[in-house]
Amino acid sequence: MVYKAPIEDFKYNLEMLAYDSVVSDIDKFKDYDSETLMSIVSEIGRLNEQEALSSNKIGDREGLKYITDGKEGPEVQTPDSYKSLYQIVRDSGYVGATMPLKYGGGGAPFTTAILSGEIGIASNMAFYMGPGLSHGAMKTILKKADDKLKEAYLPKMISGEWMGTMCLTEPQCGTDLGLIKSSATPVDDHYILNGQKIWISFGEHDLTENIIHLVLARLPDAPEGIKGISLFLVPKRLEDNSRNTIFCGGLEHKLGINSSPTCVMNLEDARGWLVGEKNKGMEAMFLMMNDARLKVGLQGIAMSEISYQNALEFAKDRRQMRSVVKEKQDSSSKADNIIVHPDVRRMLMNVKSTTEAMRALCIYTAMKIDVAEDHPDEDARQSADDFAALMTPIIKSYCTERGFLNCSESLQILGGSGFTKEYPLEQYLRDVRITLIYEGTNGIQALDLVGRKLSMHQGRLLQNLQKEIQDFINENKDNEDLKDFMKPLEDSFKEVMASTMWLMQNGLKDPENALASASDYLNLLALTSMTYMWARMAKFSIGKNEPIHKNKIKTGKYFMEKVMPELFMYSKKVQAGKSSMMDMEVAEF
Amino acid sequence: MVYKAPIEDFKYNLEMLAYDSVVSDIDKFKDYDSETLMSIVSEIGRLNEQEALSSNKIGDREGLKYITDGKEGPEVQTPDSYKSLYQIVRDSGYVGATMPLKYGGGGAPFTTAILSGEIGIASNMAFYMGPGLSHGAMKTILKKADDKLKEAYLPKMISGEWMGTMCLTEPQCGTDLGLIKSSATPVDDHYILNGQKIWISFGEHDLTENIIHLVLARLPDAPEGIKGISLFLVPKRLEDNSRNTIFCGGLEHKLGINSSPTCVMNLEDARGWLVGEKNKGMEAMFLMMNDARLKVGLQGIAMSEISYQNALEFAKDRRQMRSVVKEKQDSSSKADNIIVHPDVRRMLMNVKSTTEAMRALCIYTAMKIDVAEDHPDEDARQSADDFAALMTPIIKSYCTERGFLNCSESLQILGGSGFTKEYPLEQYLRDVRITLIYEGTNGIQALDLVGRKLSMHQGRLLQNLQKEIQDFINENKDNEDLKDFMKPLEDSFKEVMASTMWLMQNGLKDPENALASASDYLNLLALTSMTYMWARMAKFSIGKNEPIHKNKIKTGKYFMEKVMPELFMYSKKVQAGKSSMMDMEVAEF
Repeated sequence: MVYKAPIEDFKYNLEMLAYDSVVSDIDKFKDYDSETLMSIVSEIGRLNEQEALSSNKIGDREGLKYITDGKEGPEVQTPDSYKSLYQIVRDSGYVGATMPLKYGGGGAPFTTAILSGEIGIASNMAFYMGPGLSHGAMKTILKKADDKLKEAYLPKMISGEWMGTMCLTEPQCGTDLGLIKSSATPVDDHYILNGQKIWISFGEHDLTENIIHLVLARLPDAPEGIKGISLFLVPKRLEDNSRNTIFCGGLEHKLGINSSPTCVMNLEDARGWLVGEKNKGMEAMFLMMNDARLKVGLQGIAMSEISYQNALEFAKDRRQMRSVVKEKQDSSSKADNIIVHPDVRRMLMNVKSTTEAMRALCIYTAMKIDVAEDHPDEDARQSADDFAALMTPIIKSYCTERGFLNCSESLQILGGSGFTKEYPLEQYLRDVRITLIYEGTNGIQALDLVGRKLSMHQGRLLQNLQKEIQDFINENKDNEDLKDFMKPLEDSFKEVMASTMWLMQNGLKDPENALASASDYLNLLALTSMTYMWARMAKFSIGKNEPIHKNKIKTGKYFMEKVMPELFMYSKKVQAGKSSMMDMEVAEF
Repeated sequence: MVYKAPIEDFKYNLEMLAYDSVVSDIDKFKDYDSETLMSIVSEIGRLNEQEALSSNKIGDREGLKYITDGKEGPEVQTPDSYKSLYQIVRDSGYVGATMPLKYGGGGAPFTTAILSGEIGIASNMAFYMGPGLSHGAMKTILKKADDKLKEAYLPKMISGEWMGTMCLTEPQCGTDLGLIKSSATPVDDHYILNGQKIWISFGEHDLTENIIHLVLARLPDAPEGIKGISLFLVPKRLEDNSRNTIFCGGLEHKLGINSSPTCVMNLEDARGWLVGEKNKGMEAMFLMMNDARLKVGLQGIAMSEISYQNALEFAKDRRQMRSVVKEKQDSSSKADNIIVHPDVRRMLMNVKSTTEAMRALCIYTAMKIDVAEDHPDEDARQSADDFAALMTPIIKSYCTERGFLNCSESLQILGGSGFTKEYPLEQYLRDVRITLIYEGTNGIQALDLVGRKLSMHQGRLLQNLQKEIQDFINENKDNEDLKDFMKPLEDSFKEVMASTMWLMQNGLKDPENALASASDYLNLLALTSMTYMWARMAKFSIGKNEPIHKNKIKTGKYFMEKVMPELFMYSKKVQAGKSSMMDMEVAEF
């Protein structure tokens, strides 16, 4: 198992995306120039490359123990090494890095969380789901809870002494939260909650002494459906340290992320406090979900990266067959390193060129989120928010699907070894598979994109992106040095325009057309955005002589020739519409 | 876990591909008309839907036990239920169905093995690897061994009393068998073998009393490399029932196929007998490998089918969200079955339309193999052999890659449930992943296609296929009823022609160009062949009123609109050539 945090690539992206000029515009981030940020991130890298990485396989093999007869109810035991790992992560300041100074946080930009998050996830995805979800919970409390709750809970969550969860799903509803049945009844200053939640990540564990659950439930007088859902804070331990009656009813047995407890949580007259307004729980929860969705996309990127690194090491070491080119043959051995073979390079480059484009897009989006939240200028905030809102479902869906394929393609490079538990690839493939599902399946992301984001503000979100890309094209289309990049970008832009037009016309006439083409449209827009990222990287790197710049030009060319053509396929699929799938009777499937 | 053998679809394919007229031309198969064949296959279906299916999960969870201190050496214990399952399979005549009557076989066409094989694999892929590999071993013995060996070993292998294996790989070589080190020294009438083999499926187990290994090794005076490899038959037990010194040195721990023993096999002065000519071991082994490669492709198809059936059941049962079309909403419930949602249908149809095309192509190829081996007319044999030789790497590679994606897409339909061990999808995904690797990785299949099959006999193999498709186009292009099918077929044909031309010109100039584009070219040709299959199915079904014919037309239309466009992408990738991947220095990866 090998892993080196991609520090140099992070640095490249910050420079290419003009990070320093963005944070210098934002008063509260002026201490976080790229140098400071990179020194924090390098330290996170150093820690994780050792501790988190070495615990990852243990976590997978040992998994979790469910103790039915714990002292105060059922308990969940994490692997031994997780306790010390958690201590190290806490001490590093990772947990609350982006939270406000006021509550003991680091006051860092969200971009910090994305860079250090990638390292954490790559090192141990299952473990880092805990701190990752806790971050979303803190953010929701910060934005929606009253001061009393904030003061009572945020400092200890930010320090990592306590962890937070999000409790949405119930047996009858995952996607369709309007069907939630859990109930909350007002009593004095608080509420009494009853119901069952399922698939609650880190719902119960022994890493922290308290766990702060954010629970969706229904008030007695609430309207039906999605408009009658409220959000409650339900701590495992109450203020007097007594045990609240929210218990783990069992653990799921899963394909992967074996050391991330996926809990059934039973609320049995548990005490809770309202977060935000009555019946506005979904709105509050969406704050947490968007954050979480971007980080799930990041999981796809991180797992691509570590899979790539392991495949690359194998390809440089393993010897099989001869290069067809005599001069490339290694006369000291009977066979050449498999990295000489074009088909092995094809697989490596597929992973490398997509991982780097997804990373650029994700960091760019993280910076937009920082601007959207904290830039002094309202227009700047608005347009950055548009970008992030549009890109969140795209990153969540595309980067997880590609992440899964990239883990699989990396495993393939190891041949039979990749299928064995001697190598970590098989675990990465198992772990990454959940990312296509949780925080809203990828199908739901596509509906969010096509059904909500495209029509929001009369189509402004997409128009802004189109304008940004069009401006870039106009500026650079006559640059001879960039011709290998600008032609594909122009082509992809045309495809997006045509498919968008098709979608508008046919989706308005018949919404099933839009729904049938949503996933393909999302992939089309994702690939176009990645094409745009590579064009920007090329522009930034052309004429520069350092190895990373030459590397980017070459990798970008591969992307343009061998990956970007995928978008023509998606464009054709979008414009084929719904008929061939909707004409089927149920009995015909 | 649900599974129904796709009997009706088998029947459809036999009729569509004119199976009866093919076997009636072949004297030895005249008793195997489609009705007889289907009654055999239905019986196999009935057995497996019960016994094999119910043992599949047990096999996955229990796995295998490696007993270091067995009575006569290390032993491998299979799950208890496997012994009775094996007995049932033996009694059904499955094992030797296609072997000659002379040695106790059923004398059935190879097509029988493909139909009943699909059922077996879908029910329990790991278990059926045993009988599957044994079939390849029998075939090799039948074609290459002398009469004495045939008489000594074939009857008991055919009856299923003994099982066979193939022992190729060594630690230093999987793909590159020229590097084999195992040695064979002549002594009296036999040879003494030494060496270590790895990844030997069913190398040791307790299902049969004897195991007949076919082992590649090197004679003392053998030339270097691939031309110095000979094939030996090495039984676990010798004629006097004493234990031969070939031992299992350990089991691999794997991502999937947990109940298929993947053994390290140590030969310690083991006795063996030469099969075929000295130094011609690779030729003999290829007989077995081609058979095995087609069956690995079949694994992809079978796993697609059972994944689809499980996803479909879930989609018809699970309720989430409302249809956007008022009339489709089920007023008796708060949510609709998810099969009403276009995106769920998209996923189902992706799996269904590709599985059915792959099945048609695989059955067609199996029929060609029957013709190639047993047709009285030499020209007929030759052209059928051309077809099968061309299609073997395509089916092995494309059907396994698509099979993996289809298992993943089926799992996705279950959402979070698909990721848990409550449902079988996660096991199918783990099991099917090996198919992209073993019997020659998919990259090796692409090299076989582009490096060997395309240039064989001055390009005759591909020319024959092109002629077959061109004739079909000429015959049907003006058929108004078929226009939704003929236009895509013509388009795909053009893409293949253009990409083939590119490959010829640029691959001749620079072989790395051919190698760099080989995998994409294989996928292009696979999709074109599937497009051709759908066009033939459409032609066969148009104007017929039974439900299956209407179903085929609809499913075929989906394929043409939403799957076939993938081939444009592959064509573009092929023609992009090698430069962007070969220009990278090793240090730049």
